[in-house]
Amino acid sequence: MQNERNAPADHGLSRFFDPRSIAVIGSFRENFFGGYVIVKSLLKAGYKGKIFPVNPAYKTVHGLKVYPSLKEIPGDVDLAMVMINARSVAGMVRECSGKGVRAMIVVSDGFAERDEEGARLQEELMKVAGIEGIRIIGPNTAGVVNTSNGFNPCAYEAGYYRIPKGPIAIGAQTGMTNPQAFAYPRMRFGVSKICDFGNKCDVDECDWLEYLAQDPDTGVISLYLESVRDGRRLLKTARSVTQAKPVLIFKSGRTKQGAKASASHTGSMAVDDKIFDSLCRQSGILRLEEFQDLFEIPKIFASQPLPAGGRLGIITFTGGVGVVVIDRGSTYGMGLTTLSADTRHSLDAIYQGLGNMPVDIGPMMAAVKNPFDLYPGVVETVVADPNVDALFNVLWANPTGRIVSSYLKAYERIKDRIRKPIATWIYGPNFEVATDLAQQIEEMGFPVFNSPEKSVQALGLAVQYSRIRKNG
Amino acid sequence: MQNERNAPADHGLSRFFDPRSIAVIGSFRENFFGGYVIVKSLLKAGYKGKIFPVNPAYKTVHGLKVYPSLKEIPGDVDLAMVMINARSVAGMVRECSGKGVRAMIVVSDGFAERDEEGARLQEELMKVAGIEGIRIIGPNTAGVVNTSNGFNPCAYEAGYYRIPKGPIAIGAQTGMTNPQAFAYPRMRFGVSKICDFGNKCDVDECDWLEYLAQDPDTGVISLYLESVRDGRRLLKTARSVTQAKPVLIFKSGRTKQGAKASASHTGSMAVDDKIFDSLCRQSGILRLEEFQDLFEIPKIFASQPLPAGGRLGIITFTGGVGVVVIDRGSTYGMGLTTLSADTRHSLDAIYQGLGNMPVDIGPMMAAVKNPFDLYPGVVETVVADPNVDALFNVLWANPTGRIVSSYLKAYERIKDRIRKPIATWIYGPNFEVATDLAQQIEEMGFPVFNSPEKSVQALGLAVQYSRIRKNG
Repeated sequence: MQNERNAPADHGLSRFFDPRSIAVIGSFRENFFGGYVIVKSLLKAGYKGKIFPVNPAYKTVHGLKVYPSLKEIPGDVDLAMVMINARSVAGMVRECSGKGVRAMIVVSDGFAERDEEGARLQEELMKVAGIEGIRIIGPNTAGVVNTSNGFNPCAYEAGYYRIPKGPIAIGAQTGMTNPQAFAYPRMRFGVSKICDFGNKCDVDECDWLEYLAQDPDTGVISLYLESVRDGRRLLKTARSVTQAKPVLIFKSGRTKQGAKASASHTGSMAVDDKIFDSLCRQSGILRLEEFQDLFEIPKIFASQPLPAGGRLGIITFTGGVGVVVIDRGSTYGMGLTTLSADTRHSLDAIYQGLGNMPVDIGPMMAAVKNPFDLYPGVVETVVADPNVDALFNVLWANPTGRIVSSYLKAYERIKDRIRKPIATWIYGPNFEVATDLAQQIEEMGFPVFNSPEKSVQALGLAVQYSRIRKNG
Repeated sequence: MQNERNAPADHGLSRFFDPRSIAVIGSFRENFFGGYVIVKSLLKAGYKGKIFPVNPAYKTVHGLKVYPSLKEIPGDVDLAMVMINARSVAGMVRECSGKGVRAMIVVSDGFAERDEEGARLQEELMKVAGIEGIRIIGPNTAGVVNTSNGFNPCAYEAGYYRIPKGPIAIGAQTGMTNPQAFAYPRMRFGVSKICDFGNKCDVDECDWLEYLAQDPDTGVISLYLESVRDGRRLLKTARSVTQAKPVLIFKSGRTKQGAKASASHTGSMAVDDKIFDSLCRQSGILRLEEFQDLFEIPKIFASQPLPAGGRLGIITFTGGVGVVVIDRGSTYGMGLTTLSADTRHSLDAIYQGLGNMPVDIGPMMAAVKNPFDLYPGVVETVVADPNVDALFNVLWANPTGRIVSSYLKAYERIKDRIRKPIATWIYGPNFEVATDLAQQIEEMGFPVFNSPEKSVQALGLAVQYSRIRKNG
C-alpha cells in the first residue's frame, strides 16, 4: 500500500499531472501507438519520475525493465496509464487499488462510445473505481501532458516530444488536441497542460477548471466540450475561475444532428445550445466559433495585456480588409475608434489623408519617397493614441526585404512600451516570406492570426473578458 | 482613330482581358509598384500583345521603347492602363479617346475613396468617359489578370508572374485578391481571370458576371462585394448566370459600422444585408462566410462533381471531428447518412464496429495488424455506398510514411471512378508532412481544406448549388 504521508498534496488532479511515478500497462511492441510510444515519449520529453512498464510478455522496453505485474513494482505508483482490452480494465482497477494507486488514465476504447456492451463495461468501471476510491481520466482518452515537468505520456507517435512551455491549457473531450494531433512546437506562446477527458466517466470539465484555477503555470484555459456533465456545478465553478483566468470554450453538438453524433462519440448526453449559451453569459465563459480557435484565440490572452475598452484601431494596406474586420469587430462589441485631433494632425503631417480611421497606408506607400522609413512612426503614433484601446495591424509580406525590416522596427519600438493588445494579420504573394515574418513577430511577443476575422475575434474576446473582469 | 473593323469582338469586357495592345501610362522608375512593375509583369507572364509604355521623361523600360505620348504610338491601342495623378485622369481619358482607345484601367487613387475633392474628380471622370464612350475599370483598382493569354499587368511587385490556369474567376471590390496579395502559385486548381473593380465607377459586378457567363475558361465565380450598384440588374443577371456556373459571394459592410467604413473605402453606398440575403436566395447566389473563403471554397466546384443529394458520409480518425462537422453540415442542409446494410456488413467484416457513421477508423488503426493495408478498402467501400452523396475524409498526417502511402493509394483507387464530391482535411503533429500530403492529394485532383468546418461548408455549398441547378 502506498504511504499516504508521502503522496503528493492532492490539488484535485495533481496525481495525473505531477506523478512521482507512473505504471504503463499495455503492449510494448514497436508500433505507432501504445505502451511502446508512451514510454518513449516520457523518456524523450524529460520526465524525471519513475517509469514502470508492466506486461508479463516483455522483459525490457527502451532500456527499462518491464514488470510482469503491478505488485512486483518495487515502490509506490502514483498513476497508472492503461491501454488494455476494455473487458480487463475493471479488474485492473482492483489490481491498481491493491498496489495503492489512486489515479488511472484509461486509454482503452470500446466503452460507451462503442456499443451497449461497452456502455455496460463503462458502468462497471465507474462502479469499481468508486468502491476502490480511484480517480479516472477516460476511458477512450489520448491522455495528458504537463510541460512544466516533461510529463508527456503520449500514446500515439507524434514525431516530437517536447512542447514549448507557456500559459495556455488545453482540455478536450477528444484526442484532437493531444500532441499527436497538433504541431505544438509551432505554438510559440506555449502550453502548460493538455488533457483529453475521453468519455469523462469521472474527471470532467469542472475538475479541470478547478485544478487549473490554482495552477501557477496556466494563464488561459481553452476547452472543447461536446456535453456538460453537471450544468449547475459548471456555472458555479466557471463563475469563480473566470474571475482569475479567461475560459474559452468551443462547444460542439450544437445542432440536433450534432448532439446525436456526440452521444455515440463519447456516450454522453448533449445540452441544449441556448441553455449552454446562457450558462456561458452568466459565468463569464467566452465562446469560440470553430475547432481551430482552440489553438488560435488563446494567443491573445497568452501574450497581450487586456484592453481598457472596445475602441478598435486599424492600420491596413487596403480599405477592403478594414470593412471586413469592422463587421466582425462589431459583433464582438468593438467599434472603430475616432483618432484624437493630435494623432490626425501627426499622421496628416506624415502623408496627407493618412489621419483617418482605418489608417490606410496603401496610398502613402505608393506616393512618398521612403515609405519604409515612415512606417514605424505611423504605427507608434496610432498605437499611442488614447482613443485606441486595441490595434489590428495588417502587414503586406512583400518579397522586398526593406518592407519586412520596417515592420520589425515598428514592433521593436512599441514592444515593452505600449500596454494595449495588438493583433496582426499578414497577407501577401509569398507564403514562405509571410510565414517567416509571422515567426519573427511572434518571437517578439506579438500574436499573428490566420485571417483578418480571427485577429479581430481575438481582440473582441479580450474586450469581452476585460468587461467580465471589471464587472465581476 | 482605331479602325473599328479590326477591334476585338466586344463581349462586354474582352478589351480589358484580351487586348491586342496595351498602353501603360505612369512612372517607370524602378520601384515595387507602378509602370515599371506593370511592364515587367506583362513581359514575364508571357503576354504576346503589344506593350506601349508612355511617359515623356523616359526613353526605355525593360528594353521596350517608351513613347512620349499616346498619339506617337504607331498602331492601335486596345487598352490603356493609367497610374497618374488623379487630377490628370479626366484629361487622359480625352487623350485616349483621341487615339481610339475604348477601355481604360485607372489604377490611380485619390478619388471618391479619399475626400470631397476626390469624389468631384470621380464625377468628372465618369462624365468625360461617358461623353467619349470609353469603358473604365476603377479608379483605385489594382487591375486585372487573364491567365489564358498571360495578360497579367500587375501594378505591385508580387515576386511571381505566372498564375496556374484553371476554372476559378475571382473578382473583388479591393486589390486584396490580385496577385500581389495572394500566393496564387499555391492555388492548385487554378485561375481563369481576376478583376479588382476598385471604386467601380463604370464596370461592376453585373458586367463581370455577364462576361464570365460566356467565358469558356471560367467554371466558378468567386466575388467579394462591399456594395451593390444595381440590385435589380444583379438579381436578373445572377438568376441567369447561376444556372450555368456557381456564383459565390462574400459581402462585407453587413453591419452598420462596416457599411459606414465601406462608404469611405470605395465611396459606395452599402445595401441592407437582409435585402442582399434575399437577393441571393432568389437568384441562386451562394454566400461565403469570410474573406479567405474566396480562395478556399471555389476549389470544390473547380475539382469535384456536384452531389446528387445532401447525405454526408464521414471517415475520421476521431469522433470529435465528426460531431463538429455534423453541426456545420446541418446548417448547410446536409445530414449524416446511414450506411446501407451491405456497406455496414463489409466494414464490420474489415473490423467489428467500423460499420457505423461516422466511420471512425481510429479503433481499427490501433487494433488490427496491418491497418495501412486495410485503409484504401475502407474508403472505397464507404464512397461507393449509394446512401453517400458526398464524403468528408479526415487524414492524420503522422510522420510514419506507411500511413501516407496508404492514403495516396486510397485516392488513387477512387480517382476517375467515383462521381461524388470528396473534401479532405488533414491534421497532425507535423506541419511539413501535412502540407506535403495536401499537395499530393490536390495534385490527384481532390481538394484539401484548411479546417473541418471549411471542408463541410464547401460540400454543403455544393449541395445547395446542386439543388439550385435542379430547381432552376
